Amino acid sequence: MEKGLILWFTGLSGAGKSTISKVVAEKLKERGRKVEILDGDIVRENLSKGLTFSKEDRDINIRRIGFVAHLLSRNGVVTITAAISPYKAIRNEVREMDDNFVEVYINAPLEVCEKRDVKGLYAKARAGEIKMFTGIDDPYEPPDNPEITCYTDKETLEESVNHIISSLEKLGHLT
Amino acid sequence: MEKGLILWFTGLSGAGKSTISKVVAEKLKERGRKVEILDGDIVRENLSKGLTFSKEDRDINIRRIGFVAHLLSRNGVVTITAAISPYKAIRNEVREMDDNFVEVYINAPLEVCEKRDVKGLYAKARAGEIKMFTGIDDPYEPPDNPEITCYTDKETLEESVNHIISSLEKLGHLT
Repeated sequence: MEKGLILWFTGLSGAGKSTISKVVAEKLKERGRKVEILDGDIVRENLSKGLTFSKEDRDINIRRIGFVAHLLSRNGVVTITAAISPYKAIRNEVREMDDNFVEVYINAPLEVCEKRDVKGLYAKARAGEIKMFTGIDDPYEPPDNPEITCYTDKETLEESVNHIISSLEKLGHLT
Repeated sequence: MEKGLILWFTGLSGAGKSTISKVVAEKLKERGRKVEILDGDIVRENLSKGLTFSKEDRDINIRRIGFVAHLLSRNGVVTITAAISPYKAIRNEVREMDDNFVEVYINAPLEVCEKRDVKGLYAKARAGEIKMFTGIDDPYEPPDNPEITCYTDKETLEESVNHIISSLEKLGHLT
């Protein structure tokens, strides 16, 4: 059976996780891999409705994503998770669950993400309409040693995607 | 890619869902299929901690199981769910989600399940220590047209398992 993989994206809202994950998924499908994206919003809707953005509830949400990603990964599916997942400890907890865990840090400065503000959430967070918003009034803990980092303020989408694919080849996860 | 499948077990607590699901899973693995069991207790722990046994929360729990089962099924995994799933409407909602949904009614009379009382839950429910217990003070709605029915008060474990496997062959889900 083909080896599965958890491709764990982490980064601020607006850093580019969803956008990059979709293109990476297409590239992997072209290579004949089975792929699922567990996007933050989709997971909140289907697995975690009712949870808040408190640290405790965020951790529960991430554990659920980890549980599902692991089920898929051990059945040969490349599973891309694209939730902010701001806390280091819980990301490392998921890493321990699965032998094929690759952390992908989608790195963009807060100022850049806030300027993009694709969903209009930063404006709401600054206005105090949303509480516990990562980067504004809730912390983001960057990974210490992510297997892959994309600098979306300095790279084109294509460059970020190519970097991920070539890194997966070097790491032995793609042939 | 090999076709996945949702094998949706439903039935009272103590009817035999977990026991049968484990043996069916082994038989399917022997045939080279990828199999996952989403057992009621495991799912409550990993996806639905904090949910009660109210109708609303039970429906949320079943929708989550359906969401995960569908993700696995569409990637070629035979996914056996073994939660009581007492409500007809929500089971049918999950059926609509997936083209390869097979409902397996694990049918045993309440008296038999209560006499077995493997987990000691019926005694607690009768004593009022557990509320909203299916069959005691919460309804169980049997399926109208399950693809497969096992009568665990009249069949041996082996007979039930063989009936499921041969039914899957007849339905075209196993070769």
